[in-house]
Amino acid sequence: MKHLSEQDDIEFEAKFSGKEEAQIRTRLIALQEKIREANIPVIVLLCGVNGSGKNAALGTLRDWLDQRQLGLHAYERQNVQKDPVEFRRYWCDTPINGNMGIFVSSWYSDPMVLHAYGKIDDDELYKRLDECNIFEKTLAESDAVFCKFWFYKNKSDQEAFLRALDDDTYEKWRVMPDDWKNCCMAEKFEATTKKIIRYTDKEYAPWIEIESEDFTERLRTALNTLCSRVETRIEAMNKKKEKKAEEEKNPPPSPKKPHFVKTLNMEASLSKEDYLEQLPYLRARLNALLMEVKKRNKKVILAFEGPDASGKGGVISRLASSIFIRDCNIFPIAAPTKEEINHNYLWRFWTRLTDQKLLTVFDRTWYGRVLVERIEHFATEKEWKRAYEEINHFEKQLADGRNIVVKFLLYITKDEQMVRFKAREETDYKKWKIGSEDWRNREKWEQYDEAFDDMLEKTNTKYAPWFVVADNNKKYGRLQTMRLLCEHLEKVLDYDSSDLIPPPEEKKSGSKPKKNKKKKKKNT
Amino acid sequence: MKHLSEQDDIEFEAKFSGKEEAQIRTRLIALQEKIREANIPVIVLLCGVNGSGKNAALGTLRDWLDQRQLGLHAYERQNVQKDPVEFRRYWCDTPINGNMGIFVSSWYSDPMVLHAYGKIDDDELYKRLDECNIFEKTLAESDAVFCKFWFYKNKSDQEAFLRALDDDTYEKWRVMPDDWKNCCMAEKFEATTKKIIRYTDKEYAPWIEIESEDFTERLRTALNTLCSRVETRIEAMNKKKEKKAEEEKNPPPSPKKPHFVKTLNMEASLSKEDYLEQLPYLRARLNALLMEVKKRNKKVILAFEGPDASGKGGVISRLASSIFIRDCNIFPIAAPTKEEINHNYLWRFWTRLTDQKLLTVFDRTWYGRVLVERIEHFATEKEWKRAYEEINHFEKQLADGRNIVVKFLLYITKDEQMVRFKAREETDYKKWKIGSEDWRNREKWEQYDEAFDDMLEKTNTKYAPWFVVADNNKKYGRLQTMRLLCEHLEKVLDYDSSDLIPPPEEKKSGSKPKKNKKKKKKNT
Repeated sequence: MKHLSEQDDIEFEAKFSGKEEAQIRTRLIALQEKIREANIPVIVLLCGVNGSGKNAALGTLRDWLDQRQLGLHAYERQNVQKDPVEFRRYWCDTPINGNMGIFVSSWYSDPMVLHAYGKIDDDELYKRLDECNIFEKTLAESDAVFCKFWFYKNKSDQEAFLRALDDDTYEKWRVMPDDWKNCCMAEKFEATTKKIIRYTDKEYAPWIEIESEDFTERLRTALNTLCSRVETRIEAMNKKKEKKAEEEKNPPPSPKKPHFVKTLNMEASLSKEDYLEQLPYLRARLNALLMEVKKRNKKVILAFEGPDASGKGGVISRLASSIFIRDCNIFPIAAPTKEEINHNYLWRFWTRLTDQKLLTVFDRTWYGRVLVERIEHFATEKEWKRAYEEINHFEKQLADGRNIVVKFLLYITKDEQMVRFKAREETDYKKWKIGSEDWRNREKWEQYDEAFDDMLEKTNTKYAPWFVVADNNKKYGRLQTMRLLCEHLEKVLDYDSSDLIPPPEEKKSGSKPKKNKKKKKKNT
Repeated sequence: MKHLSEQDDIEFEAKFSGKEEAQIRTRLIALQEKIREANIPVIVLLCGVNGSGKNAALGTLRDWLDQRQLGLHAYERQNVQKDPVEFRRYWCDTPINGNMGIFVSSWYSDPMVLHAYGKIDDDELYKRLDECNIFEKTLAESDAVFCKFWFYKNKSDQEAFLRALDDDTYEKWRVMPDDWKNCCMAEKFEATTKKIIRYTDKEYAPWIEIESEDFTERLRTALNTLCSRVETRIEAMNKKKEKKAEEEKNPPPSPKKPHFVKTLNMEASLSKEDYLEQLPYLRARLNALLMEVKKRNKKVILAFEGPDASGKGGVISRLASSIFIRDCNIFPIAAPTKEEINHNYLWRFWTRLTDQKLLTVFDRTWYGRVLVERIEHFATEKEWKRAYEEINHFEKQLADGRNIVVKFLLYITKDEQMVRFKAREETDYKKWKIGSEDWRNREKWEQYDEAFDDMLEKTNTKYAPWFVVADNNKKYGRLQTMRLLCEHLEKVLDYDSSDLIPPPEEKKSGSKPKKNKKKKKKNT
């Protein structure tokens, strides 16, 4: 018997003529150059059973492409299942603009196997495929090109292939523990595959099915299709860009009156005495609630937005002092780095959410997309209008993955901002906090009001609610934020902390009654 | 009873006068500006028991500094102990140039607690402190400034403090599970502290002991000392830089004759027939050995160096095809990014070694420091000469942490390089592999030979050996590398793979004897 890898039906060695190899390799290298120039990410999925040709495609691409613009990804299923936020790792692995990412196992692997094994039903399958569709759509809309390959191999060919591997001392390591099992269940896998392909074959991320008998032909088709699909998409994109530039010349119309300010009592304030009494109480209460969150194996993500000088830093600092530093990560979000700007705008938040601590606080957030990026035209109208839904879905995924997501808009009046800006300019150690950009933003106050209003209207969800806090008085704003957070956590956890941490009135036996306490609490 | 946080002896609120606060804050903000200008990392350690003032210092720095140039770090002891390579996380957390990193728990916490509890003896303590010293020295030599604070508090004061916390409903959460235990064992902790401080108080990273009775005084001393130490160091550095610029004007002398080439048979080659027969065998053998590595809960790290066009990519591709992609990470190392260049040169390798897969391959490595950086004067003579030891220690840490580290120098002759360069220029799909830089490096062939020689002499260690492979014949080079790797793994694992994977001679019953096999193997 000839050694397997010298036979024609084995997939490990490409069998192109020298001339054809040169042709394809030249095209692939040119393709990488085009991808770099277009500055877009390309996502290639190689799906299919062992022996279907996907490994040949993988090996060939690894050998022939410039590795510096290439990422290869495969996942252990048990690791995928360990992370409560499934798509986190896929998000973090999305290629940077100009690069190609090849995924051997992917977001389809787990639903595929679970459904074929009968561990999830059709409903659950489609629910998980919805996630895949949204993920791909979000990326495709920020110009990622998808090439999703499905390599077919029928049951008897699979069996013959596995047997040939098993019989060869030097190749049998290629047979993975589940390969025989999956081969036996080939009909089930075929049925699942059909459902998956039908449900996730989208214009923005179509499936390319590879079916030929001959391995060389499979590889040829795959490589050529990869090239032509990406080339076509890049051409289409370039045309679209020209058109987009035209459209952007007409500015969007009609600022409308913001609503959210009306509901706010901007006069709310707090005396120093009350502040000093309430702060330790709220700190202890928040601590108790966060410990309860920890006990339930959940985490908290807080998002802070607000005009410049609205006091976000001070509020966050008080919040953070409620727990030990090893349980807390604070991310101040500034302008994106070069690496960040060359990814989808959500990427820099996904990557900050790996290795999550108990409490994660974002000082400015992904809402930059619908605030500064909208107002400064860093995002097109289409882009920021689409973002509300993308952001809702982002937060939904986090919430579904054992996170409690709470968002705060700290608001001050335009007059109060001026007072604070002046104080910053006049105080040596605060000067760094104020720059020409802040003054420029101030001029667009009404536009920000409108953007805040849209944001609150479109993204105030049950799983990630907004709280608006009047912060003209810093003491009031700080405690009010902590109080709202405590109340929300108690509601979500269905947990009453008052036995453990009684309010100051109850703590002091027979203490003097506090005036106006209740009234102040109701401010949002 | 007054509420705790209104008393003077509580550490949570700073008690400076408005004027003094303004003074210190102005100085701190100016300090951050200076650090940014000097483009150096500053590492601040806050050590001491609960109530010693370290939390006050932490909270104050968090409130008063510009968070965007600040990193805060604290570690859960159980997580630290889980990673077999202890310093990996500390390395990854080192601040980028221009930033300050504050560590509340640190590399001293674990040895401290273990020694005080009697779980490690003096010998083990000092061994672990040696690691701390080397870590700090390596960073200090690339201009990191250390401020290591130790806040003292005697046993009776600790006890009073903990009791006060415990008695206050709103503050008792600050008492951590081990606080009372550690307080009881205060004498043991004091003895351990003395040893730690004496052993790790170095000129490049001295300890600053904070002992005052009064909390405000402690904080004042800590903040002022931080400022003055960093200011002084930056001044000293600026002076040193001028001097360094002078020294660098005198180029280093005397190239010497390289030795390693002499031991190589550059004529070694392999026929296509032999290659096709041996490749599947070596692939299977390597796979079996890697599975054995996995079983023993170890990992493999491979480093590849060699002249341009020496065939590293081809070798790595063959190696990698011995295991499934999900078990393997390949890192092609190019010029450092802006973020990487603003860290110690080892940082970009440490960060690539988090989430390690079974096999990690570096296509070019940390040896760039003593190769291209030496020859192109990107590193000063002092820097690259120091690097041998730093690199040995880096690899030692990896090897001690369940890694098998193996290094390959793939070598070709200058004539063969010319042949390959020309082929690259003449082949469309290989043109991208050749640029002016490659031609420039070629002109410095003799300097690289010398640098290779020094590298082999100084870094060929038992825990991370070098293998030099003649690669004028690519087929020979590929298989020779795989064979050497297999042999080394068998030796290290004390494991014979030949039962599982017999060599081709034995596999075929009564096969024709191969000529010259043995001779070819002995080439290193």
